[in-house]
Amino acid sequence: MVSQKNDSLKRKLYSIIFEAETTAGRTFDIILLIIIVASVVVVSLESVVSLRRDHLQLFQTLEWSFTILFTIEYFVRIYSSQKPVNYIFSFFGIIDFLAIIPTYLSLFVIGSQYLLVIRVFRLLRIARVFRLTRFVNEGQVLSRALNASITKITVFLGVVLMMVIVVGTLMYVIEGRESGYTSIPISIYWAIVTLTTVGFGDITPATPLGQLLASCLMIMGYGIIAVPTGIVSVELSRADKLDATSRVCPNCHKEGHSSDAKYCDNCGHLLRGKA
Amino acid sequence: MVSQKNDSLKRKLYSIIFEAETTAGRTFDIILLIIIVASVVVVSLESVVSLRRDHLQLFQTLEWSFTILFTIEYFVRIYSSQKPVNYIFSFFGIIDFLAIIPTYLSLFVIGSQYLLVIRVFRLLRIARVFRLTRFVNEGQVLSRALNASITKITVFLGVVLMMVIVVGTLMYVIEGRESGYTSIPISIYWAIVTLTTVGFGDITPATPLGQLLASCLMIMGYGIIAVPTGIVSVELSRADKLDATSRVCPNCHKEGHSSDAKYCDNCGHLLRGKA
Amino acid sequence: MVSQKNDSLKRKLYSIIFEAETTAGRTFDIILLIIIVASVVVVSLESVVSLRRDHLQLFQTLEWSFTILFTIEYFVRIYSSQKPVNYIFSFFGIIDFLAIIPTYLSLFVIGSQYLLVIRVFRLLRIARVFRLTRFVNEGQVLSRALNASITKITVFLGVVLMMVIVVGTLMYVIEGRESGYTSIPISIYWAIVTLTTVGFGDITPATPLGQLLASCLMIMGYGIIAVPTGIVSVELSRADKLDATSRVCPNCHKEGHSSDAKYCDNCGHLLRGKA
Amino acid sequence: MVSQKNDSLKRKLYSIIFEAETTAGRTFDIILLIIIVASVVVVSLESVVSLRRDHLQLFQTLEWSFTILFTIEYFVRIYSSQKPVNYIFSFFGIIDFLAIIPTYLSLFVIGSQYLLVIRVFRLLRIARVFRLTRFVNEGQVLSRALNASITKITVFLGVVLMMVIVVGTLMYVIEGRESGYTSIPISIYWAIVTLTTVGFGDITPATPLGQLLASCLMIMGYGIIAVPTGIVSVELSRADKLDATSRVCPNCHKEGHSSDAKYCDNCGHLLRGKA
Repeated sequence: MVSQKNDSLKRKLYSIIFEAETTAGRTFDIILLIIIVASVVVVSLESVVSLRRDHLQLFQTLEWSFTILFTIEYFVRIYSSQKPVNYIFSFFGIIDFLAIIPTYLSLFVIGSQYLLVIRVFRLLRIARVFRLTRFVNEGQVLSRALNASITKITVFLGVVLMMVIVVGTLMYVIEGRESGYTSIPISIYWAIVTLTTVGFGDITPATPLGQLLASCLMIMGYGIIAVPTGIVSVELSRADKLDATSRVCPNCHKEGHSSDAKYCDNCGHLLRGKA
Repeated sequence: MVSQKNDSLKRKLYSIIFEAETTAGRTFDIILLIIIVASVVVVSLESVVSLRRDHLQLFQTLEWSFTILFTIEYFVRIYSSQKPVNYIFSFFGIIDFLAIIPTYLSLFVIGSQYLLVIRVFRLLRIARVFRLTRFVNEGQVLSRALNASITKITVFLGVVLMMVIVVGTLMYVIEGRESGYTSIPISIYWAIVTLTTVGFGDITPATPLGQLLASCLMIMGYGIIAVPTGIVSVELSRADKLDATSRVCPNCHKEGHSSDAKYCDNCGHLLRGKA
Repeated sequence: MVSQKNDSLKRKLYSIIFEAETTAGRTFDIILLIIIVASVVVVSLESVVSLRRDHLQLFQTLEWSFTILFTIEYFVRIYSSQKPVNYIFSFFGIIDFLAIIPTYLSLFVIGSQYLLVIRVFRLLRIARVFRLTRFVNEGQVLSRALNASITKITVFLGVVLMMVIVVGTLMYVIEGRESGYTSIPISIYWAIVTLTTVGFGDITPATPLGQLLASCLMIMGYGIIAVPTGIVSVELSRADKLDATSRVCPNCHKEGHSSDAKYCDNCGHLLRGKA
Repeated sequence: MVSQKNDSLKRKLYSIIFEAETTAGRTFDIILLIIIVASVVVVSLESVVSLRRDHLQLFQTLEWSFTILFTIEYFVRIYSSQKPVNYIFSFFGIIDFLAIIPTYLSLFVIGSQYLLVIRVFRLLRIARVFRLTRFVNEGQVLSRALNASITKITVFLGVVLMMVIVVGTLMYVIEGRESGYTSIPISIYWAIVTLTTVGFGDITPATPLGQLLASCLMIMGYGIIAVPTGIVSVELSRADKLDATSRVCPNCHKEGHSSDAKYCDNCGHLLRGKA
């Protein structure tokens, strides 16, 4: 009896916390969303010195309230899961855990409460709340395209890294320690800042030879940004076509019908599927 | 009699002010264009301290003249419209209204006259003046392509925002308050400056660990700019193809058949033309 | 007799100076090339204070020598042209003229000799010297693609300009005169620096609201760079296809054979033309 | 007898050092890899003043150990090669040589040991170690695409260079020596920093006219980045298509027929497969 009752409670909790089909489930998700955003905002504002000085009490109260709420939620999630271990070691299970411990850690380690911003990743659940499957789909198209081009991008980044190490060291040798290039690691950092066209300007070449080498690095960085862009464009275009060519004519086997086509545009035969 | 005369005046005013078919209409539009540009230039120059000190009288005279002219124009527009309410709440109606009130507001709120630059949006009418339908068309192709990729870009921006919040906070924890990263909001601002490869250099990492994290962020920002570029390229290319191969079905009038299609993919009717 | 002799001299001079078919013509062009590069380098180095102080005499001698050489060349070009007026008002005629006058002007206006760097445009003749028709062709493909997308890019730049004016003014109102945004023109300059992701850092927002607006502007600038890139990609891809589809099969009329194809890949018929 | 023994030793050494098919060969390559990375890290860290002061002895011992190891390896590579001269003047032979001499040079020239980072290029062997033919292939696709677009990119860079020289000189004339634009070469360096959107901010325009010209240069740099990106996108897309549809003629063995080709475009023979 008790276990049955328990089971029905578990199912109910599960549908509220993990799903967004029922009114209760949706309401829970929306409230959770608001609390997550509020808690990230509170952590951010707490770090502003003037605000912290004046409202320390308020910030700490809010932070502990949010943490206790999230802790309760975490344990209810574990309790209501059919296989708690699966939840705990799932992507969202780990995020949920990391989203509460910094507050407890802050009792021992000063400053660790700022790691609470990891809570922002909990917002990835947002997609489910608004039933934004469209967003999830588009996200999948993007990440598929990025995955397909990961080898090309790794090769590209490897070449960039070697270039940055060599140019950084040359700048260290050319410019010398007086002009900001105080060590090879710092010079490599400068080379990255320059190649990526960020250009902070905290370290800049002062000698003519250094400026010449920097000019070459900048033009290279300006030019090779074309490479990842080209890679991703091609992959996205391919993913786009794949998306569009998933429907085959059952009569003439022509591929590439758009998702809203009803008839084959080659032989006029009726198509099966989505449209 | 009076109402008829009134009606004919209204029609005439309407054709002059709202249309550009007649000589009078075109002349009006060109004069309006010049006045708008002149008024934006005057507002800009007035803000330069040295000019303002020497020519305050001149600037104020010009500003009030422009405002009075635009106010008269605004009321004539309302008067000559058949349905004044439609005009008032249309896009251009609101712009026209916002383009005059800052001067009146400046009597009460100092500095509000600078908001007059909103007048620059009145220049969007420019397309009509020069009958630049070609520009309008191209603008529509661009905005259609941007609209089609808005979901992908939203997903992309969401991921970027989370990344910036997390990296910003980490930098705050790593660098500490001494080196410019005085609060989490400031650190997030820095992360945006860095990720977008703007790199002002007003805040820069000083610790080795901070420079390492900044390097990762820069390389990421340098690499992921490929994503929106790829998205827009694919959409523009698609919009372009649709434009170029816009074949219409003679049976169901569906547009957008590709150039090698033989049958309508909506109703299966034989297509005429290229294929 | 004299006029005939004159004519033959003219023709000979013309073939040496304007053409690169004969050995004399090619030798002339290569010497000219070296002198142009040398004269640009001399003008550049003359501007370096330390070099100028020590070698003023040398620089002035060289500069006047180059100018006299170019002046003689200019008059010989006019003399040997069949229609001197055509040459004088041609693109290269004007460049050749502008490449000599700054030295004479420098007798009256101090500093005008630096405008001699306009000589760098004379290097555009380089293509002919090395018979680099391949470069000229590629340049034409590029400029055709840019021309085809000029309307789209104008629309894009118009929108960017309006955005920059409005955001610049808002920053002026928000930040106030104390923090570098001393006038609306300066603020617009800052907005351009920021939107284009250059980010000098000579002016930076100091207020939280200013930093928020700057963040939005940066993310916008980072995102909309995709637009011109997409436009040019599409146009280049189209130009590329046009290039590749210039050969039609005389039997089955299939287009799109690559330039090195000998047989139609649709019906196997022999192709005419390039290959 | 001796020469035979020698030969067998040579072959064994060759298979260990140059190949990665045997266990011994793979082990050798992985150990080599670790030593290379370690030696680059040591060279980098040695340049940090605080570390150098405290651990000079350690750094020098490590550096000489690595160099002696690499020297032995170099001579064994020469010894075990069948044609030593081919190895010595091959790409990797030169890299291997350059990776050891700086340490010996540092006995005579102070600072030359930092050139040891050239060792980072030895990591290009990494591909073989992990049998990463996939990476090598992708690298070849990328470099083929870059090679195919090298003419277009040269034209583009030539135009950029002329633009930068002219704008740099104009800025020198406009801004004058007081505001950082101390010579034409420096001004050209600034123009490169600005056009590539790096924007260090070490030199910035101070006059209204200079800021106007800088704005134009920035917008140009922001816009024309589309050109190399478009070029590389088109080439990558073409390389991609060739890759995907690489059909070989059974008669003349010509590769690269598109997926809808029925006949070889080189000899007119019927193709097998997809079409």
